[in-house]
Amino acid sequence: MTLEPIDTSCIADESLPWMPFVPYSELVSVKLYRADPVRGETIAVYRAPPGARLPCCRHSGTTTIFTVQGRWKYRELDWVAGPGSVVIEHPASQHTAEVLADGTDDAILFAVTQGDLLMLGDDGSIVGTENWRTAVDRYLEHCRDNGLEPRDVTGRNA
Amino acid sequence: MTLEPIDTSCIADESLPWMPFVPYSELVSVKLYRADPVRGETIAVYRAPPGARLPCCRHSGTTTIFTVQGRWKYRELDWVAGPGSVVIEHPASQHTAEVLADGTDDAILFAVTQGDLLMLGDDGSIVGTENWRTAVDRYLEHCRDNGLEPRDVTGRNA
Amino acid sequence: MTLEPIDTSCIADESLPWMPFVPYSELVSVKLYRADPVRGETIAVYRAPPGARLPCCRHSGTTTIFTVQGRWKYRELDWVAGPGSVVIEHPASQHTAEVLADGTDDAILFAVTQGDLLMLGDDGSIVGTENWRTAVDRYLEHCRDNGLEPRDVTGRNA
Amino acid sequence: MTLEPIDTSCIADESLPWMPFVPYSELVSVKLYRADPVRGETIAVYRAPPGARLPCCRHSGTTTIFTVQGRWKYRELDWVAGPGSVVIEHPASQHTAEVLADGTDDAILFAVTQGDLLMLGDDGSIVGTENWRTAVDRYLEHCRDNGLEPRDVTGRNA
Repeated sequence: MTLEPIDTSCIADESLPWMPFVPYSELVSVKLYRADPVRGETIAVYRAPPGARLPCCRHSGTTTIFTVQGRWKYRELDWVAGPGSVVIEHPASQHTAEVLADGTDDAILFAVTQGDLLMLGDDGSIVGTENWRTAVDRYLEHCRDNGLEPRDVTGRNA
Repeated sequence: MTLEPIDTSCIADESLPWMPFVPYSELVSVKLYRADPVRGETIAVYRAPPGARLPCCRHSGTTTIFTVQGRWKYRELDWVAGPGSVVIEHPASQHTAEVLADGTDDAILFAVTQGDLLMLGDDGSIVGTENWRTAVDRYLEHCRDNGLEPRDVTGRNA
Repeated sequence: MTLEPIDTSCIADESLPWMPFVPYSELVSVKLYRADPVRGETIAVYRAPPGARLPCCRHSGTTTIFTVQGRWKYRELDWVAGPGSVVIEHPASQHTAEVLADGTDDAILFAVTQGDLLMLGDDGSIVGTENWRTAVDRYLEHCRDNGLEPRDVTGRNA
Repeated sequence: MTLEPIDTSCIADESLPWMPFVPYSELVSVKLYRADPVRGETIAVYRAPPGARLPCCRHSGTTTIFTVQGRWKYRELDWVAGPGSVVIEHPASQHTAEVLADGTDDAILFAVTQGDLLMLGDDGSIVGTENWRTAVDRYLEHCRDNGLEPRDVTGRNA
């Protein structure tokens, strides 16, 4: 029996690459800290300049977002999220994220995402899926293309 | 401030209707106990006769299945699940459920499902989505069509 | 990088031993299907004869209980749970479970439990803790004492 | 039937008070964003000056920590967490947090905590419990003592 010990580790910022959040936006970058196959969860930081936007996206689970820097909003809603604010996306909700164009700071968002993000086209059709598995695929491809040694982002001790 | 109390309630079997699990199968019935908008979770029992099958379905979250009665399998895998067994579906996995045709008992499965189930057509395209919200919609429509008073299946005390 | 594959397996009833749920009750037996260190979750079936009871217990997370057979209740509440009913325990709630003394069937409960169960003495002090880790310890000790080869109940493919 | 709509809201930093994290430390402050009775989860930011420490604490669920500012560690482990790093505490683990004494910045930590934190004394006995319910109690008491109108931190739309 493998009673694999689980250590509490610190995943350091500098050990992780920024990756373009393609195919959704060349302007948006993502830094993947962890992709958990058991929880179906990703832990990541997103960075985007003023004016950047993403496709409308539907959540199958909860996403919890802490804004480290910058000002952003959902096109469908009235509030603007600034530094230190928290946004909680509920399962089966959908929204279109955009960074305020009149800002000077890049938006930096720490996000814990459960389940699938279904990226929607203008006609509501599904144009892409993001989850723990696609996050790992993007990470491995990025490491391969850039000659980086990948970390075990899915491991229990990651 | 609404510090709404949460009581632990018992959701009794006889208070809930069996509903056809349409549009996926007229043979499969579902009894919805709870649809939780916060967890993005449904708690339900499914019933299906020998030989019944569902479309291939992809999980965005975890599904935990306890087999109360009957024998069923995933077409893609070798094992057969019988009474008292537990199957855990992992996020981003996909499988095609079918009840063994040589059985005599209906399969009765208790399932806790997180996130979306994406029902897939033969070509892999998404032909339907099941989640807490669609489960509530089916339930309300069924109650309306059959003159039943719906329970508050989404409430904290449900 | 270990991108460990996760297969969907079937955990069969007959492959798992009944264990006395000591030190809480010699009358209550538990069959452990899975103890997940990542979710902090146990999946188990409990079996108890009419009249059996457990200490008052406080939940740190959610417990979802499906009654397969028998009739039981919480001493503090009015309802009686029978076959096919579902009870959802909320985080930070506490209750005292007992099987109805006037029944003839053993109670058989399928339960998914997140976090700690803190078992309380008559004075409210904590007399025991149950979680994924103590569940594994009980299982390994039981296997050792009875010459059984333990399954990897904590593994991703368990 | 109450099919309560759930809006995605932004919980703004400036709308929330800093509260002393008593009785554990007068030096540590906490800002509560959300206390979720369904998930058994708190979302909060903690702030502590160089040299501050907390009692050893045991987790019943997962805690995910993003370091916004400052340098801190667990006394039992070798790593030091700096700005932009992520620490994941696993269910049933226990550690003693302290902010590095040689720093100049306060530590500012965004934390999503599931289940109970059991605060332990030097002899390992439980000297306090933190969970969604105690977090609400602290918040309401703080609002009362300081003449603040409390937000509905437990509501679905919080």
